[in-house]
Amino acid sequence: MYKAKAYSVTSATAPFASNTITRRETTERDVQIEILFCGICHSDLHTVRDEWHSVMPTAYPCVPGHEIVGKVTKVGAAVSRFKPGELVGVGCLVDSDHTCPNCKTDMEQFCPGATFTYNSPDKHGTAPVTYGGYSESIVVDEHFVLRVPANLDLAGVAPLLCAGITTYSPVRRWGDIKGKKVGIVGLGGLGHMGVKFARAFGAHVVVFTTSLKKKEDALRLGAHEVILSTDPVQMKQHAGTFNFILDTIAAEHDINAYITMLGLEGNITLVGAPETPLQVSAFALLFGRKSISGSLIGGIKETQEMLDFCGEHNITSDVEVIPIQKINEAYERLVKSDVKYRFSIDMASLKSE
Amino acid sequence: MYKAKAYSVTSATAPFASNTITRRETTERDVQIEILFCGICHSDLHTVRDEWHSVMPTAYPCVPGHEIVGKVTKVGAAVSRFKPGELVGVGCLVDSDHTCPNCKTDMEQFCPGATFTYNSPDKHGTAPVTYGGYSESIVVDEHFVLRVPANLDLAGVAPLLCAGITTYSPVRRWGDIKGKKVGIVGLGGLGHMGVKFARAFGAHVVVFTTSLKKKEDALRLGAHEVILSTDPVQMKQHAGTFNFILDTIAAEHDINAYITMLGLEGNITLVGAPETPLQVSAFALLFGRKSISGSLIGGIKETQEMLDFCGEHNITSDVEVIPIQKINEAYERLVKSDVKYRFSIDMASLKSE
Repeated sequence: MYKAKAYSVTSATAPFASNTITRRETTERDVQIEILFCGICHSDLHTVRDEWHSVMPTAYPCVPGHEIVGKVTKVGAAVSRFKPGELVGVGCLVDSDHTCPNCKTDMEQFCPGATFTYNSPDKHGTAPVTYGGYSESIVVDEHFVLRVPANLDLAGVAPLLCAGITTYSPVRRWGDIKGKKVGIVGLGGLGHMGVKFARAFGAHVVVFTTSLKKKEDALRLGAHEVILSTDPVQMKQHAGTFNFILDTIAAEHDINAYITMLGLEGNITLVGAPETPLQVSAFALLFGRKSISGSLIGGIKETQEMLDFCGEHNITSDVEVIPIQKINEAYERLVKSDVKYRFSIDMASLKSE
Repeated sequence: MYKAKAYSVTSATAPFASNTITRRETTERDVQIEILFCGICHSDLHTVRDEWHSVMPTAYPCVPGHEIVGKVTKVGAAVSRFKPGELVGVGCLVDSDHTCPNCKTDMEQFCPGATFTYNSPDKHGTAPVTYGGYSESIVVDEHFVLRVPANLDLAGVAPLLCAGITTYSPVRRWGDIKGKKVGIVGLGGLGHMGVKFARAFGAHVVVFTTSLKKKEDALRLGAHEVILSTDPVQMKQHAGTFNFILDTIAAEHDINAYITMLGLEGNITLVGAPETPLQVSAFALLFGRKSISGSLIGGIKETQEMLDFCGEHNITSDVEVIPIQKINEAYERLVKSDVKYRFSIDMASLKSE
């Protein structure tokens, strides 16, 4: 075991503070990674503040971060796919049981024995729970380490590991959207990636927003059109014309308004999870035999596919790079959605601590 | 134009009474049908009582009935597919615009110009609105006339035209359910047909019910298992194991309980439409990337396919045959779900009026 610098919180109300944590030595199948950038995801904030207490209570100290990009520093004897010096990524998962039907079909995110990158029981016993990427270093089973294309800006790659795969997976799985009308609801960390992917897959991309201030930015990101969702005239004009809608809103909102936007056999997929139940009109689904789906990150194979796709299409997240010393301020801004579109922590800043 | 005997209501609160209505003479493309049996659908009751006022207000007098089986009595000069004496059926649709994308892809039920069998503006101007099957005779465009297999009991065929296609369509479209675990929620007019179809397609069929009194009947209809949905132990035991669930409940109910029953990438399809919005947990959809769909009757081609399938598999609805003079009593019993599983009106009873 070795000590690594990290930023952690000691309770749901405490601010982040510099600290050291214990990491395991690389076992046979492990890859040790020097972390270069780590994105800040809304899940980090929910976990740090124990807002998902009923589902997954937070153990303290808590070191979040599951949008990790770094450089391999050491590999175990049995590791064949990576060698020191290579650029790699780690997302929301660091282990699974490798044997269940979901693991065998590349859906490790649904493995009942999945180990999440932070706040998940640590199988290796190095600590009570896993510690995430707000740290200088991490040790991860080879299977959960992703290859990062060399041509991309690393600060913007980090958020691909969660925001990227979360939006890529449902867009790709829905099928061929080339030439079809695809809507993106919400233009935040997830939504802005949804726009980029839908555009790259050849769709006619339309962003729904409550604020026209975002229009110019939506078009810059790749949208063909922007609809002000609070304007009944615009909404009526586009009713029944969408093939697919990606709904990235985690706050309460009127989903029936978007079901109405769908054409025959259209689908709306949720990647955000509002706390209160969605009020779904059955009539709206019946007339046009429409559907609502949920989607949760992606498996490891699919995450690699997404990274390769990003390499080919030169896609990264739009990020504001911050030193880790600004983490508390960044969390305050995140609550207000005051970021375009993801914070990416430059871990070089941790070296000076 | 000619006069035909019928049972109609003159207001939302009036009982049915014997009457005569006007039917058009057969035009070139028309088939005139002597009605032998007509099923009683919940939609009939909703329309008669103007319970769908906000969506589709009822015009009076109202003659409902869209589960029609009869014998061809006359055909127009251009009719090539039918001749007098043949057994035929008519479902929820009697016309459409024939030119829209939905018509061209055999989904006439979603044609914006669709004419429903009753309470729909009558294009021919014979009456303000169309009149349905509680009548001795009907005249229908050839395209909307279905061929009825000769080997089936006609009283039990009538409900196939609505309850049958409503449940056949989503079960068939979901894909290959052979050997998979399929749930049916609700064992009424729709649900009992869902059981028969799911069984005929080779699924392991499980009926969810709130009353164990229905168990024996569910097994007789083809279910392999019955789950008491009010028993948390049974529900927990089956959680996460279903590939597909057909939800036939039109009353308010807890849909999340059934989403929880679905396995990875499972789907629940609604064919009933509760008036109040469904309270859907987004979390329940995300974890397991599950989906909720709606389905509405079926197109003409698919309805014929369903009838042919019923002929091959000897499937009909379980019916209680009544004379039309018992219609008011039947409606009272329908409200209380006191029928196994569909009323079918023997139209011979109308001759004596």
